[in-house]
Amino acid sequence: MLGAVMYGARDVRVEALDDPTIQKPTDAIIRLSVSCICGSDLWPYRGAQPIDRPTPMGHEYCGIIEEVGRDVKNVRKGQFVIGSFFASDNSCPNCDYGYQTSCVQRAPVTGAQAPLLRVPLADGTLVATPEVPDASMIPNLLAVSDVLGTGWFAADAANVKPGSTVVVVGDGAVGLLGVLSARCMGAERIIAMSRHDARQRLAREFGATDIVTARGDEGVARIKELTIGIGADSVLECVGTQESMWQAIRATRAGGFVSYVGVPHGVSLDGAQLFFTHVHLHGGPAPVRRYLPELIGRVLREEIDPGKVFDLTLPLEQAAEGYRAMDERRAIKTLLTT
Amino acid sequence: MLGAVMYGARDVRVEALDDPTIQKPTDAIIRLSVSCICGSDLWPYRGAQPIDRPTPMGHEYCGIIEEVGRDVKNVRKGQFVIGSFFASDNSCPNCDYGYQTSCVQRAPVTGAQAPLLRVPLADGTLVATPEVPDASMIPNLLAVSDVLGTGWFAADAANVKPGSTVVVVGDGAVGLLGVLSARCMGAERIIAMSRHDARQRLAREFGATDIVTARGDEGVARIKELTIGIGADSVLECVGTQESMWQAIRATRAGGFVSYVGVPHGVSLDGAQLFFTHVHLHGGPAPVRRYLPELIGRVLREEIDPGKVFDLTLPLEQAAEGYRAMDERRAIKTLLTT
Repeated sequence: MLGAVMYGARDVRVEALDDPTIQKPTDAIIRLSVSCICGSDLWPYRGAQPIDRPTPMGHEYCGIIEEVGRDVKNVRKGQFVIGSFFASDNSCPNCDYGYQTSCVQRAPVTGAQAPLLRVPLADGTLVATPEVPDASMIPNLLAVSDVLGTGWFAADAANVKPGSTVVVVGDGAVGLLGVLSARCMGAERIIAMSRHDARQRLAREFGATDIVTARGDEGVARIKELTIGIGADSVLECVGTQESMWQAIRATRAGGFVSYVGVPHGVSLDGAQLFFTHVHLHGGPAPVRRYLPELIGRVLREEIDPGKVFDLTLPLEQAAEGYRAMDERRAIKTLLTT
Repeated sequence: MLGAVMYGARDVRVEALDDPTIQKPTDAIIRLSVSCICGSDLWPYRGAQPIDRPTPMGHEYCGIIEEVGRDVKNVRKGQFVIGSFFASDNSCPNCDYGYQTSCVQRAPVTGAQAPLLRVPLADGTLVATPEVPDASMIPNLLAVSDVLGTGWFAADAANVKPGSTVVVVGDGAVGLLGVLSARCMGAERIIAMSRHDARQRLAREFGATDIVTARGDEGVARIKELTIGIGADSVLECVGTQESMWQAIRATRAGGFVSYVGVPHGVSLDGAQLFFTHVHLHGGPAPVRRYLPELIGRVLREEIDPGKVFDLTLPLEQAAEGYRAMDERRAIKTLLTT
């Protein structure tokens, strides 16, 4: 099969790879009709996260099961399934608490920018839809696999409730779907921080009530003006830099909630500074598995259309252009057809 | 009057000071029959927090109102009142959310190691008891003013619930009262980290079910052994150093809650490291005012005896010895009679 492989910064190649095979009796092999590129793939693409060998890329996936290992009981060949970027057994104590991305058996899923994918711990990791969905639904279900699940966790971890005032820092796919998630959770006011026209439009479509284009001190001051001088109840940090993290913390009221869902790069929090902000802080790799049944249900009932974040579709062979377009912010998120 | 004044590291003098007077119409003057030394006073005492001029010490207080400014309406001369270390109006949005220590008008209260004290924003800050309490109750009520209120916030911010498994890092007065607070909130298991006999005994008396003497990696490993390998639901960080903070975070399960209530000194949190722990983090200067009515009620109904943390009583004139005894860990907390 063909698959996208990253060789180093700005060096993504589509090349022939061995088809994946069952390696453990708990594995499944899935056929993917589409794949996509994640905002987090841009960290190594930009050289901010060194890679030490050619690495098959992609960790967002949904598709039809081709084969299962002999111990797999919950899913079977021919089912359409969705999973998340960390495989999990969904039965250890951490999974029971809803933190499947801290599963004691967790294993990364990689190589999804290809037509076939091996998923470990298939029973715990995969959720099947009641029937094979219509092709038009697939971008929405693919979005559930990571970016919606992560945006949903961001809103949940930031304690968004009916009536909340919410700020979303970051206008990537996760931030935009954080807006959608906050709307679903009943937020009254959703302020998206974005200075990019197309993203502002999608944020509004997903439920943003206000757009703030300012950043840093000025951005925080603008948020305070919009929130009776004290800051927002809930702030979703969907970038992962030092600047965005402090922008998020400082935009939050005392006793408010900050979530952070992108792997922090170069972020260091001064304990004493954080102390006097009085915020709640929670985040980490989104336990998307916790939310899959609910989010799949919302998509299949056509309540939400998270697939709108895919604003560029390319054949897998042009993956390199897909990365470039996202890097240059010409695309929010690239869908790759296999 | 006489009052304790810190001139620099390990230099506390008791000297003649002007009696405080009403400076704003919202002030009150209180007569204190006892005062005390706080664990946080040891930071400047040990030189870890430089002071730039001779500083009247003490911020824990309860006593009889001598005089109120002309705008004070909620309390009156002759009442016995308790307040906290930050004065607050108790009516701004931050106060309404229960974060009175982030009151938009907040003002520090200082100089309580003396027989008379000026308290700003008396209406918002002070809570009166129904009648003047018996002298034997006063140490318990003085403890409510800061160390119990802070330990209570630590337990609350760490989400202690009926059935929780709780770890308390730090065996100072706040940590010990964190144990007591966790017990009141229904924790099933309370693990106190302490290597000091007298403090271990008091922790047990306050409700600790287990004592762990190990620290650092070994301490974390011991906590994991006691918590089916995953860590505790709630960890109260009651020290404020880099080591204690990470010990607390690493002793917490994914999705668990870490509170931190002592001003962090030299603490820096690496964003990526924190991210993968999946903990909730909340803390800051304890909004003791939020809890005063409930905690005063519990003391007056004789349900709790937080005053047991005072294991040394000295006349105010010997304040310097009171500091030394705490610095050398000969005393948990020093009561000063005025």
